[in-house]
Amino acid sequence: MKKIAISIGDLNGIGFEIALKAHSFVKERCVALYCVSPQNAERAAKKMGATLPKDFNAIGGEKPIEIRAGEIDANAGEASFASFVQAIDLVSKREADAIVTLPINKASWSAAGLKYKGHTDYLRDRVDKNAVMLIGAPKRYVAFFTDHIALRAVADRIALEPLSDFLVRFYKVASLAPIGVLGLNPHNGDCGAIGSEEAIIERAIKKANETLNLKAFEGAIVPDTAFAPKALERYKIVVAMYHDQGLSPLKTLFFEESINVTLGLPFTRTSVDHGTAFDIAYRDQNPSIVSYQNAVLAAINGVFTRS
Amino acid sequence: MKKIAISIGDLNGIGFEIALKAHSFVKERCVALYCVSPQNAERAAKKMGATLPKDFNAIGGEKPIEIRAGEIDANAGEASFASFVQAIDLVSKREADAIVTLPINKASWSAAGLKYKGHTDYLRDRVDKNAVMLIGAPKRYVAFFTDHIALRAVADRIALEPLSDFLVRFYKVASLAPIGVLGLNPHNGDCGAIGSEEAIIERAIKKANETLNLKAFEGAIVPDTAFAPKALERYKIVVAMYHDQGLSPLKTLFFEESINVTLGLPFTRTSVDHGTAFDIAYRDQNPSIVSYQNAVLAAINGVFTRS
Repeated sequence: MKKIAISIGDLNGIGFEIALKAHSFVKERCVALYCVSPQNAERAAKKMGATLPKDFNAIGGEKPIEIRAGEIDANAGEASFASFVQAIDLVSKREADAIVTLPINKASWSAAGLKYKGHTDYLRDRVDKNAVMLIGAPKRYVAFFTDHIALRAVADRIALEPLSDFLVRFYKVASLAPIGVLGLNPHNGDCGAIGSEEAIIERAIKKANETLNLKAFEGAIVPDTAFAPKALERYKIVVAMYHDQGLSPLKTLFFEESINVTLGLPFTRTSVDHGTAFDIAYRDQNPSIVSYQNAVLAAINGVFTRS
Repeated sequence: MKKIAISIGDLNGIGFEIALKAHSFVKERCVALYCVSPQNAERAAKKMGATLPKDFNAIGGEKPIEIRAGEIDANAGEASFASFVQAIDLVSKREADAIVTLPINKASWSAAGLKYKGHTDYLRDRVDKNAVMLIGAPKRYVAFFTDHIALRAVADRIALEPLSDFLVRFYKVASLAPIGVLGLNPHNGDCGAIGSEEAIIERAIKKANETLNLKAFEGAIVPDTAFAPKALERYKIVVAMYHDQGLSPLKTLFFEESINVTLGLPFTRTSVDHGTAFDIAYRDQNPSIVSYQNAVLAAINGVFTRS
């Protein structure tokens, strides 16, 4: 069985609860190396009103912390960072085959004085600056040319060189053609009548394909039908021009199932596609474990293998 | 049984084929008044290699035309306009209870010298200038604050007065609270960090609710989860800020099922949510009749009744 390092996430959030609830599912499929100290695991289980199973392999070395359900907290931030670093150490030393991350809280990382905004930021710094994040499910993953920027800023970012460079870098880590590249405007601009960025997108696709000497990318794909059945069948991966263009249909189709994947690393890293859910942590609210289960399966089987 | 006037659409497109294929479904549920002349119905059926059923009630008076599959054509434009006008005449004189429209071709209307861009344009001119179009399916309809404009122009359109006026007008014709109003930016702007239009949207909602003296609207709703299960359950109608924000998840969920509805008229008008599909007309390509069937059901049963 493969060894999977589990970065436990923020102990004040729902991460530990999910790991514990999904433990029997996970242990049947891999050797789970839980990056959380035995003391903190005991405390979190107790906070849930649960008992830590004997075979819950808590191997973390981080300091014991007081668990404060749903609170932004420097100690919790430091602990979740230590868990993440340990998971990467394990996979870097080949003591684990892949890593799965549960959600951290960005404000708690900041409270702990960490300079990294989140997982991907750290991975880019420590492992590979070209790491690319995908979000989705086995039927459809999405990469984002722009992400957390205001909608009004999106159109001006569409430019030939940055987009074709992004596509070339992306293909080198994704290696799964054909990849659909979405247009920007309603009906792809209706031949320029309502927006003209599709012409740039099409030139960028052409340029990227020429550089790669391969028909890796197709498009521009009309955005509003890019997740309808036909397109879903043709493209396992698409590149979205902006956050909601990709996320909205993804969350419509795969609300609980979707996962995050970081490509371009020497190892597989998957993650749940949700946050710490501070509002329901340790409140017997039964958070969904589906995204976590899918992240574990993708870490075991490979991202582009239907699980 | 209710009487439904069927505007047959452009005879060079797939409209007639759909009407004929769905005839047995339709005739069991309503008295269909097909607004197409017997000669043109005969010609279209023949072009399909089919026979016109005896009970296909073709009552149109438009001129016979030569059917040219998939072609933009002034005669076809004129005929489809005549069909539409006849359907509205029937419902205006109460000889029909509601109307269903099959797709017209805008270029053919233009070739025929008509000053109207399409169905809604004509309805606004002849019946009520406040007619509002919804797109969707019984589980979710969407109204659009902006529609066929470039993505780069969207953010500047978000302004207090025009949006609150739109909401008030819209509620007067929709009358179904609560209606969700979508934000504009990723994560609703993350408290202003990535876009600030949500503050305007929230003020417009407040103002509209005050004007209506009713909690008609809620929001801003985070756009990327607005079509996920919870939101879908809570809001039968949402208002989208731009075309793809509403259309992309709609087409993801209801690719074949969705219909168009015009609210604010003294009668029910529904329409298929697809075009003339000139590329497959009269080519034995078996166009889907699902949207048409749903449009007929909504015309018979009312738009906000689950059919």
